Amino acid sequence: MKNKESNEIKSLRSKVKKTLRVTSPSLESVLYKPFKVLDSGFIRVIDYMGDDSAIVQSARVSYGEGTKKVSNDKGLIRYLMKNWHTTPFEMCEIKFHIKLPIFIARQWIRHRTANVNEYSARYSILDKEFYIPKPEHMSTQSTTNKQGRGSNLSKKDTEKFIKILKDDADRNYKHYENMLNENQSGKIIDDNKAGLTRELARINLTLNTYTQWYWKIDLHNLLHFLYLREDAHAQYEIQAYAEIILNKIVKRWVPHTYSAFKEFQLESYNLSKTAIEVIKKKLQGKKISYEKSGLSKREWAELTNKFGFKK
Amino acid sequence: MKNKESNEIKSLRSKVKKTLRVTSPSLESVLYKPFKVLDSGFIRVIDYMGDDSAIVQSARVSYGEGTKKVSNDKGLIRYLMKNWHTTPFEMCEIKFHIKLPIFIARQWIRHRTANVNEYSARYSILDKEFYIPKPEHMSTQSTTNKQGRGSNLSKKDTEKFIKILKDDADRNYKHYENMLNENQSGKIIDDNKAGLTRELARINLTLNTYTQWYWKIDLHNLLHFLYLREDAHAQYEIQAYAEIILNKIVKRWVPHTYSAFKEFQLESYNLSKTAIEVIKKKLQGKKISYEKSGLSKREWAELTNKFGFKK
Amino acid sequence: MKNKESNEIKSLRSKVKKTLRVTSPSLESVLYKPFKVLDSGFIRVIDYMGDDSAIVQSARVSYGEGTKKVSNDKGLIRYLMKNWHTTPFEMCEIKFHIKLPIFIARQWIRHRTANVNEYSARYSILDKEFYIPKPEHMSTQSTTNKQGRGSNLSKKDTEKFIKILKDDADRNYKHYENMLNENQSGKIIDDNKAGLTRELARINLTLNTYTQWYWKIDLHNLLHFLYLREDAHAQYEIQAYAEIILNKIVKRWVPHTYSAFKEFQLESYNLSKTAIEVIKKKLQGKKISYEKSGLSKREWAELTNKFGFKK
Amino acid sequence: MKNKESNEIKSLRSKVKKTLRVTSPSLESVLYKPFKVLDSGFIRVIDYMGDDSAIVQSARVSYGEGTKKVSNDKGLIRYLMKNWHTTPFEMCEIKFHIKLPIFIARQWIRHRTANVNEYSARYSILDKEFYIPKPEHMSTQSTTNKQGRGSNLSKKDTEKFIKILKDDADRNYKHYENMLNENQSGKIIDDNKAGLTRELARINLTLNTYTQWYWKIDLHNLLHFLYLREDAHAQYEIQAYAEIILNKIVKRWVPHTYSAFKEFQLESYNLSKTAIEVIKKKLQGKKISYEKSGLSKREWAELTNKFGFKK
Repeated sequence: MKNKESNEIKSLRSKVKKTLRVTSPSLESVLYKPFKVLDSGFIRVIDYMGDDSAIVQSARVSYGEGTKKVSNDKGLIRYLMKNWHTTPFEMCEIKFHIKLPIFIARQWIRHRTANVNEYSARYSILDKEFYIPKPEHMSTQSTTNKQGRGSNLSKKDTEKFIKILKDDADRNYKHYENMLNENQSGKIIDDNKAGLTRELARINLTLNTYTQWYWKIDLHNLLHFLYLREDAHAQYEIQAYAEIILNKIVKRWVPHTYSAFKEFQLESYNLSKTAIEVIKKKLQGKKISYEKSGLSKREWAELTNKFGFKK
Repeated sequence: MKNKESNEIKSLRSKVKKTLRVTSPSLESVLYKPFKVLDSGFIRVIDYMGDDSAIVQSARVSYGEGTKKVSNDKGLIRYLMKNWHTTPFEMCEIKFHIKLPIFIARQWIRHRTANVNEYSARYSILDKEFYIPKPEHMSTQSTTNKQGRGSNLSKKDTEKFIKILKDDADRNYKHYENMLNENQSGKIIDDNKAGLTRELARINLTLNTYTQWYWKIDLHNLLHFLYLREDAHAQYEIQAYAEIILNKIVKRWVPHTYSAFKEFQLESYNLSKTAIEVIKKKLQGKKISYEKSGLSKREWAELTNKFGFKK
Repeated sequence: MKNKESNEIKSLRSKVKKTLRVTSPSLESVLYKPFKVLDSGFIRVIDYMGDDSAIVQSARVSYGEGTKKVSNDKGLIRYLMKNWHTTPFEMCEIKFHIKLPIFIARQWIRHRTANVNEYSARYSILDKEFYIPKPEHMSTQSTTNKQGRGSNLSKKDTEKFIKILKDDADRNYKHYENMLNENQSGKIIDDNKAGLTRELARINLTLNTYTQWYWKIDLHNLLHFLYLREDAHAQYEIQAYAEIILNKIVKRWVPHTYSAFKEFQLESYNLSKTAIEVIKKKLQGKKISYEKSGLSKREWAELTNKFGFKK
Repeated sequence: MKNKESNEIKSLRSKVKKTLRVTSPSLESVLYKPFKVLDSGFIRVIDYMGDDSAIVQSARVSYGEGTKKVSNDKGLIRYLMKNWHTTPFEMCEIKFHIKLPIFIARQWIRHRTANVNEYSARYSILDKEFYIPKPEHMSTQSTTNKQGRGSNLSKKDTEKFIKILKDDADRNYKHYENMLNENQSGKIIDDNKAGLTRELARINLTLNTYTQWYWKIDLHNLLHFLYLREDAHAQYEIQAYAEIILNKIVKRWVPHTYSAFKEFQLESYNLSKTAIEVIKKKLQGKKISYEKSGLSKREWAELTNKFGFKK
């Protein structure tokens, strides 16, 4: 965030208004403020609607008197989360301003149930900012997981590759400005020439160039996004965003929902029909081998590892 | 709205909170308050996110410096509406509490891009409230429009049919209570008997029974709903709801969007490729007959009627 | 299905065409044919796109060479289902023609990610067909589950209530015809009178009246529908439809997907974070009581019941 | 398309199967065959569901006997299109295999109501193929339209910039292979070294690199996509794809829908409320100036230009 933006945020945060709506004081305390992510990215909350109490209120509209017996909001939210009653969570909404590398934006946008306004490089010039991984994130390809990372690269290769990433992004951006005949701040380079149209010049940029957008989503779909992207199988760079959203924002906004989400989704474990039978037999003290389990090798390894038994 | 609800609204409206979010003072002035619709229905706004300025802000994120030249918010909103740049309008959200007859709820729910929490008659007992049309709405079937209304019924038939609607709804509701062995306020009728399960007893109710729900939608999709349902071809009873949302709520909430929506959508007219040619010829002072127009009879009648020419 | 429809189906089934598309011979064998559901309902498949092999093909586009190592289609489909790789399942599509009571249609339509064309009672007259439960389905309200059924009603009440349901539906339908001044087959009753417009006359009908629609959905969303509606907590009447779709249609169409769905979703069990710890301790032979488990009473009962242990 | 793929297509096209489903012989004649787009892109149809007759059939389910009076399929489809009865068009579905540059994929994916399986560069290595514009497409930025193209660049600049685009893409791809320690065909470069994980190496690629995906969408949403992307304001490179889909594929598949779409949407013109009044006055022979029209300068210019009048 540059200085101009900083002042804008100060100004926005100085204007206290009155409202009759539900508010989340804890989320208000960070409204508009950027949380830094990766080297040049950020996330900030621009607006929100509802809180834990709004979820409860929506559930009570649906289930009427039936829900009065659940003693308190926390208990009802746990019940809703456990039993996949998802519509009350859709009654909360949040709007973010996010700066992120294009290759991450491409993963992110696959979540379709959201509203997006992205900075358009057809209209405007992109900032000269690229994601360059830290040395400790420069890993080899995993040999067991087709989409995962393995161990660290050698120090020499790490340095060499980071230099390549920097140099290529820099050179391609410089060529972008040359073709535009205009630099980052909108200054014309050569007054006697016309530049290439923006929508074509941008195709020379690398996938680690930063873009930004407004992203608005309801709480149910946000949790689904976090379920997939805060996961260890997600690419590290998108996990970094998901982690901030989960632990810095959702936790402040809807604390009961946050803990129910961890309990019943994020840190839960789904036992397949066959795995249920294995666990049952083990609980009865019976022996059961991989060969007789009916599980695949991969499934057997995962199960025994998760529950700490061998045979 | 009953007394208990009235006090609830007073209580909600008495709690003024502080927020750093965008607010719409004009919408705040009616927050939680019911607008009456039909005989026993209502609409009230429970929460909202954004206003005209939030649309402009989202558009500026997308188009960057490119939008700075449009002189003001109103002009930019007109431009966005005219050119189908719909995503900035998705950045505002609104949540309603609505009471409506089931046959209208069935039309309403066809708009899929919204969030809904409906009162469940599997859990709870429905109120004894039915929609009975006013005499002036008891029309004949239109002979020209397969789905429309024609002229008024005779006074005698009107009275007779209104009595039928009332009596049938009443009797069926009474039987509903009998089968439940429980009345509207949850009182058991005969302590020595078990009633029929709610999810079955309700199937005896008529389609004009009132239900209620929370309905949350973004502004773009709300406008699309209004475009279809505030239209003269929509059933009168859903028009009544759309009319209130448009003129009592949207107008307060986002006045620039409201007038741009009327200008470019609600009161606009779409000329087909063939109709464009007809208009062009007429403007050039040429004669053009229905037979040579290339339009169907129905299309010709609509066009000449709209623009006030005959041949 | 009436005779006219029967001949239509025969005619459709007699026209064998050539195609280069993927076909599912087992699904073709029941194409257009109605499966009876409840007393007057049905489901029939009108069209479909793709099969198990199309899912595999889509996955291979995404994961490229990476998927070649999974030995066969069945294994890959199991892997996709286990790991929530849902997009390949979206690549198959199916279109149904369904006749169902209105109160079930109201539950069904809550699944938004589908395409629907419903028979319109604004345009046309509804058939005189109502759902009347069989005596064995006339249950009391459950005392433990706010939305469930308990034990059977007394024989006397069952007979009495079934008669009420029949009589009220019949009478209201007769009044519907009278108000329309037109009977079910479109015959005008009194030539000297005008009837009430269809869109109003229909509001006198009961919620067990049958309607019909075309319903088109992709396989991923269909499975999600089945997950929720084939469940024992769903209302019996919608379970009846889900059960046919699952076991008569999905099983024929995509057999590998069908068995993976049962293994990893339908008959799987989700252990919460706290329940995982309970199971782990039990597997290590440690004692753990409800009080120290961290589970709610309801959760403890469910877990011990599922896995067959007490303390 | 390479040789291997060519043989795959031949093989797929040689397997004629029997079906009872609706078929579109004209679309079958191009099934699986690639239409070339841009320098290295293509579109091919992989599967489809329905045709014009299926739209008519769905409409008749909705409107019942009411639609029987419309004389023929073509007339009914025109009526549906004119009056925004969109749900019958959702009853047809089509699945494409598309190869396209990443910057176009980023625009394309903004259409959310579709199913996508994209080739994953986390799993697999991208082909060495980049989009390089033809000299005649190397335009300057428009001075009147913030997102459009102006006139052609000088021959010298055109050559220079095309060389930059080629060189930068080539160099960055070579570095991609080096970092992977693996080339395009999966051959390890240096057996004694480990390469950088694929999900990071790819971030060095330029936005004109080709990707590919399966894309499945219903006909209504496809037409909406074409309405926006076949438009002169869309970027030329996505127009090229839209043009092929419209004129080579939709025209073959659903010819009545194709012509109704052109008549009532693609080549129609939407008159704003104010523009309607201007046209009416002109038709009555009255003079009306820009100043008194109530239109903005831009709107007045567009209207007079469209209908060929000045004052």
